[in-house]
Amino acid sequence: MQHTMVPSDRVEHVGVYGRDGSKLGTIERLMLDKVTGTVAYAVIKTGGLLGTRHHYPMPWSALKYDPARQAFCVEVTLDELASGPCEFDGDEFDWGDRSRPYAHANYWSV
Amino acid sequence: MQHTMVPSDRVEHVGVYGRDGSKLGTIERLMLDKVTGTVAYAVIKTGGLLGTRHHYPMPWSALKYDPARQAFCVEVTLDELASGPCEFDGDEFDWGDRSRPYAHANYWSV
Repeated sequence: MQHTMVPSDRVEHVGVYGRDGSKLGTIERLMLDKVTGTVAYAVIKTGGLLGTRHHYPMPWSALKYDPARQAFCVEVTLDELASGPCEFDGDEFDWGDRSRPYAHANYWSV
Repeated sequence: MQHTMVPSDRVEHVGVYGRDGSKLGTIERLMLDKVTGTVAYAVIKTGGLLGTRHHYPMPWSALKYDPARQAFCVEVTLDELASGPCEFDGDEFDWGDRSRPYAHANYWSV
């Protein structure tokens, strides 16, 4: 049976693959609008060691689940993520602050 | 600064208190609509030991965050949850199945 819903804890920590097929990282968490309860964006954590780790926002609609890989696919590459206007690195980032832009053309092109 | 967003992993595992001030349980997870990325409902886990544990759906809009308690408050009591038409017990429950009713008058009265 195909469900119309997915549990939040089955989205968190799931892998994310880019357009070129390479792994970008994992879903770190989802950012929810407090009032509406809608996912504003997912946070993709890339890199491994501290210092090489980055956090990027990704709209929910851009995440396509691939059952074969048991992972999400997005229409961007790691280079595009890293070179885009959307990089939020460090653990000190204010995730609730929407004043910083994170638009990326490819985020919305899926 | 008051944020308009909240991370999913700061909602999960947070306590939930009922109308009478007693603790109902904790947020176990959020159920998200796959297409829209909207929280269909939160799952409240009540009880402690296996066998006394139950899982109840609660609409996002019914959860009010209380900063003093660092917990959510809802306008139902444990008795109302337990006697309502909304009890989903056991770990075998099909969380994606919306054919079973879980409407509870007080869920929507907040």
